[in-house]
Amino acid sequence: MTWLDLPDDCPFGIETLPYGVFRQATDDPRVGVRIGEQVLDLAAVAAHIGHEHAEVLAQPSLNRLMALGPATCGEIRSWVRSLLVEKSQRAMVSTRLLDASDVVMQLPIEVADYVDFYASESHASNVGQIFRPDSPALPPNWKHLPIGYHGRAGTVVVSGTDVARPRGQRLPAPDDMPVFGPSTKLDIECEVGFVVGQATPLGHSVEVSDARDYIFGVVLLNDWSARDIQAWEYVPLGPFLGKSFATSISAWVVPLEALDAATVPLPEQDPAPLPYLSGGHTSLFALDLRLDIAVNGQVISSPAYRDMYWSPAQMLAHLTVNGASLRVGDLFASGTVSGSERLTFGSLLELSWNGTQPVQLGNGSTRAFLEDGDVVTLTGWAPGANAGRVTLGEVMGRIVASPD
Amino acid sequence: MTWLDLPDDCPFGIETLPYGVFRQATDDPRVGVRIGEQVLDLAAVAAHIGHEHAEVLAQPSLNRLMALGPATCGEIRSWVRSLLVEKSQRAMVSTRLLDASDVVMQLPIEVADYVDFYASESHASNVGQIFRPDSPALPPNWKHLPIGYHGRAGTVVVSGTDVARPRGQRLPAPDDMPVFGPSTKLDIECEVGFVVGQATPLGHSVEVSDARDYIFGVVLLNDWSARDIQAWEYVPLGPFLGKSFATSISAWVVPLEALDAATVPLPEQDPAPLPYLSGGHTSLFALDLRLDIAVNGQVISSPAYRDMYWSPAQMLAHLTVNGASLRVGDLFASGTVSGSERLTFGSLLELSWNGTQPVQLGNGSTRAFLEDGDVVTLTGWAPGANAGRVTLGEVMGRIVASPD
Repeated sequence: MTWLDLPDDCPFGIETLPYGVFRQATDDPRVGVRIGEQVLDLAAVAAHIGHEHAEVLAQPSLNRLMALGPATCGEIRSWVRSLLVEKSQRAMVSTRLLDASDVVMQLPIEVADYVDFYASESHASNVGQIFRPDSPALPPNWKHLPIGYHGRAGTVVVSGTDVARPRGQRLPAPDDMPVFGPSTKLDIECEVGFVVGQATPLGHSVEVSDARDYIFGVVLLNDWSARDIQAWEYVPLGPFLGKSFATSISAWVVPLEALDAATVPLPEQDPAPLPYLSGGHTSLFALDLRLDIAVNGQVISSPAYRDMYWSPAQMLAHLTVNGASLRVGDLFASGTVSGSERLTFGSLLELSWNGTQPVQLGNGSTRAFLEDGDVVTLTGWAPGANAGRVTLGEVMGRIVASPD
Repeated sequence: MTWLDLPDDCPFGIETLPYGVFRQATDDPRVGVRIGEQVLDLAAVAAHIGHEHAEVLAQPSLNRLMALGPATCGEIRSWVRSLLVEKSQRAMVSTRLLDASDVVMQLPIEVADYVDFYASESHASNVGQIFRPDSPALPPNWKHLPIGYHGRAGTVVVSGTDVARPRGQRLPAPDDMPVFGPSTKLDIECEVGFVVGQATPLGHSVEVSDARDYIFGVVLLNDWSARDIQAWEYVPLGPFLGKSFATSISAWVVPLEALDAATVPLPEQDPAPLPYLSGGHTSLFALDLRLDIAVNGQVISSPAYRDMYWSPAQMLAHLTVNGASLRVGDLFASGTVSGSERLTFGSLLELSWNGTQPVQLGNGSTRAFLEDGDVVTLTGWAPGANAGRVTLGEVMGRIVASPD
């Protein structure tokens, strides 16, 4: 299929071709494409052949590439594929392939606004039971709209960035006074992020049937959460400092086009949502993404994205139904991906049931929540064309101690 | 004081000197300073004399100016003042003064992240009584931390921008199914916004005693709110579409330096906040800002900012205590400014007590919430040096009907 000598089970095969931004030593950051264990210096190839979008590919983020729109991005993806498939390109391209271990990946997008949803029924139900044991597990609005909130765009970081344990207020017990210090309940949220590639004017609402055109691609996302800070602060205006210290995304953005073979029908919704959230069977796609959460190299859970209640198309339609505009680089995330079985839960909060049932790691140690030094890695894949696989870029982060 | 012939009670006198970004016809947008009814084309003056920061003043936002830091910004403010005070400058400057009515004001800052606080005790207590009549008026965390949440940075608009009535879901009554349509409870929130002029790295927390150095200036801000959408969506993750359709800010940013004479002690806080929110008497400043809310030209309320419970320095310290980084252009707002008396409430929700006591307008009409065509204007001033006044830029918006 490709003139590169890739093993059949090689990650980032010819079906994936994700975009990222990389640099070598002191070079300027620029756009590359991952193939196997190598990175194609797409900026260099484009400059060499005088590609009409060479300048766009020499940028330090994918924003200008995405802004070219889905038709042009589709042509560029076809061209990239041809570079790696046509033997006539081999000589020219080979000299512009770099070892992935020799480059430093950058944050791939300039994040405009970041919105986090809450689209897994199992996750919302688990959190409801843990945080609000005296109320119904799902809030009354949950099945009528995809609940979401704005997060901090400026603290979205690329995979590999260390995460310092946040400090903040927590309430030790209901009648106590709050205390201040490093979070004692630092957690993971395994999520899928969607990168918006098209802007809209203020007042425009995106229809569910058009949503695909606005979504450039997919990242894995770890919405690090300090549960003790969050529990004390979040009533009535929602999560703030319990989330805003860091959100990690994968360095490689997988174009939505690569996930055609992973596009599956959305599970039935009951009650039927309001018309602006309906759009016929084909519009309301789900994605068959298979995720893994590893702590210190040990897989502790394997969430399946296809079971999510709300579709990304519905999230985007909801986000804009009030006329809110989109910008290129907007990022919206699914919320924690949790299935109904314990070993598919997407957070330690759920896996350890708020610390009461610590998770076993392979070496005999256990975790209720994260400890300093822990390394968390989210990975994933999806069915690709021709029985191939599409690799979702990993998102990794190491917990370091709070600053003094 | 200035060689311009300004009446004593002229708005935007020599004590104010706010910065904004303007354009004429098809010119490029650039930095100007408001003086009386005129705009000083600061970019043109700087280019003419070869000022070392001429390029910064030719930008389409204030971000690069702010990023020069408080010391350099202080020097630039002194230079601007000298241009308008020293008679020797008159000939050169006069030809670069434009009528304010001849320019079009732009959004003055490129907004990075937008955070909205909830710092007025009266407002929080009023909203608690209206939205949560069966709970204590203030949530248990309210006096321990300045509650805040992230809003949508991409829909911050400049004064004068029309605001389309947002569409969305609302629940007509507790046992009903939600319905969809234009908001029936569109509201004002009269707030003060603080523009961040200095970036910090991830992991750094701003101390309350250093907060002034990070705040470039002040805007008036209308946090338009659709109360029916907000009430249905906001549990458990906070306001989202009820706020994200538009947030209007004044075109003129008043440097914090202009408010030295308006800096007053913060009212006593009981219980004493945790040490990271304390900082000695002088750090925890309040601001004596006198605000007015007008609907269709009729003043309906006059909130006093000096009564706010939480200081802007505490808001900034809290926002960063978890290590969240700041970017130049971050915007944080106070939340609705409401005093304890009805005619100092900062929203129609409170003024009309959720629609039950409509507000009288001058012409015999009443308002529970805003109607299409209504024009809302927030204005304000503060005591200046030498018994003068500092004018806060106005923020105006007209409500237009929802799109079909």
